[in-house]
Order: sequence, then structure tokens, then C-alpha cells
Amino acid sequence: MAHIALPEDLPGITGPLAAYPRTAQHLSGLAQELLRGESTLTPGERELIAAYVSAENDCFFCESSHSAAARHLLGENGDVVEQVKLGLEEAPVSDKMKALLTIAGKVQRGGRNVTDEDVARARAEGATDDEIHTTVLIAAAFCMYNRYVDGLATWTPQDPALYDQQGRQLAAEGYLRS
Amino acid sequence: MAHIALPEDLPGITGPLAAYPRTAQHLSGLAQELLRGESTLTPGERELIAAYVSAENDCFFCESSHSAAARHLLGENGDVVEQVKLGLEEAPVSDKMKALLTIAGKVQRGGRNVTDEDVARARAEGATDDEIHTTVLIAAAFCMYNRYVDGLATWTPQDPALYDQQGRQLAAEGYLRS
Repeated sequence: MAHIALPEDLPGITGPLAAYPRTAQHLSGLAQELLRGESTLTPGERELIAAYVSAENDCFFCESSHSAAARHLLGENGDVVEQVKLGLEEAPVSDKMKALLTIAGKVQRGGRNVTDEDVARARAEGATDDEIHTTVLIAAAFCMYNRYVDGLATWTPQDPALYDQQGRQLAAEGYLRS
Repeated sequence: MAHIALPEDLPGITGPLAAYPRTAQHLSGLAQELLRGESTLTPGERELIAAYVSAENDCFFCESSHSAAARHLLGENGDVVEQVKLGLEEAPVSDKMKALLTIAGKVQRGGRNVTDEDVARARAEGATDDEIHTTVLIAAAFCMYNRYVDGLATWTPQDPALYDQQGRQLAAEGYLRS
């Protein structure tokens, strides 16, 4: 049971977003901009960063939802999400994405962990300032969303079909559904 | 030096907020709602939660800025910020604030750390659902802001007078200055 009264039957973050619309508008607006706004990183690549950070934070709802969104957006390469979570350096992603996901993982453990060498590696693989900024802020933001979901002990369904459906919807419609 | 090109002479989060306005609008809007929006927790109490979490995340810029804002808002009780950071249970704050700050500290270490007992203690001290929600989301949000500031290695001045000035301005004007 959640730590506070929330609408029934709304899983994970969707409960507090519905119950607290004044903060929800900013939380949803940020997610939409970070994951679907203009960027040279694809929405699938950005969902992969979100899923990876959520897995590192052990947030089942966010990890499942954003893994499913990434699978739907990445299409044939969708199984890459599980492979990244199992071992980043061996996963079938570009060297640039490996460098950016390494930065994201450092941010998850605390911003000071990101080194000049981490950033130099990303740049050497072609990452731009905008891409590094987006990566750092996605990782930081999911340290917020994950804590919001789990800190309130929101309802966490276990059925994979529900997350697949949610991921399909996030892939198609984004984060500003009314 | 920051990990990406940022405007010179803008300390901490103000650099990336100026350089990346599309995400800044949501980050600033969320801070304004959480720290200055309608709530039965005072702005000073909410800045205290922000300062405490920033201290736990070892984010010097955010800790210094929000400690200063809390001092200006709490007036004569301003030195409570340092006392909370030195030892929560002995600090001169209400039992309700001790319970809420305990929840905030658990969220900082990961959302799953918040127990039913933590929430029951807060309720027993008079905390409402809205206050528990606000506390969890402030703590979660500062896990984002802190990582954004440090993950980009933004400029971190050391002069206490600068933070006092910044805290005075945040206390008077909030987070939506143009």
C-alpha cells in the first residue's frame, strides 16, 4: 500500500501525477523535453539511458516502463536494453552510447563521480556538448523520478504485459497525454 | 572547469539553466512550485529540507544556496540549518519536521528506504499526506538538481558572501526570475 492516499488502479508514477497536478505539469513537461524534445540522440537512445539509470536505482516500475518504451522505439534492436543492463561494455550499442551510458551510471551514483576522462572519452566518440548535457540531465532526472515512485511506495504491478502496453503508449504518445 | 561549455560567471545551476532554456523552464517551474507554491509547510521549512538533502548529497553549491535561503526565510531560527545538518534529532526543530527530515534523508539514499514506520511517525506528529508528498518530492528533486550541478562540474564559488546574497534573492524572489 502506498504511503499516502493515491487514486486506485494507477500504477507507479501515474498515481501521484494524477493526485498532484501542480507538480505533475513540470514533471511531465521535463520528461517530454528530455526524452522526446529536439536532440541528436534518438528517443530510443534516451529511453535506454532512462531505463539503465532506473535499473541502477532498482526502481522496478520505471525500469520496466522505460525498458519497454526503449524496446518499442529501438525496434529490432530492442533487446539491447537487457544486454546493456547485463553488461555495458559488451552490449551491442555504439561506442558513443557506451561512453554516454558510462557517464549516466556515474551520475546515478553521484554527480561528482563524472571525470574529465569520462567526458573526453565521450567526445572522442563524437558526443557533443548537447548530448553530454542531455545524458547528465536524464540520469539526474531519473534519480528523482525513481525516488518519487519508490519513496511513496506506489503500486507496482508485476505483469510484464502491462509494461509492454505502457511502453508502446509512451513510444507512440510521449509524456503529455491529458 | 565545467564538463561542457557554459556561460562564464554564472555559478552552479544558473549556468546550465541559462544555456539550456528548454529544460530550464521545467526545472525552475518545479522548484518554484515545490519551494514556494501553496503548502502548509512554510517556504523556510521546505528550503531546510532542500538544504539537508543537498548536504547529504555533498553538493556544495546547492547546500550553500538553499541553506542561505532557509536562513533568510526562517529569520531568527536561521541557525537551525547548521544544527540540523550536524544532528537531526538534537536540532531545534519541531517533532514533525524531524520526522519529515528523516523521510527526506531516507529518500536521498533511495526511495525504498522509506518505511511504514517512518510515515507513521510523521503522521503521529501531525504531518498530512500533502506534507509527506511534498517532502518526498523535494528530496527526490534535489537528488536531481544536485547531480545536474555536480555531474556537469559547474563553477562552484567558495565565497560565503555570494551564497548569502543568492539566498537573500531566492528568499525574496523565488525561482522564476527572468
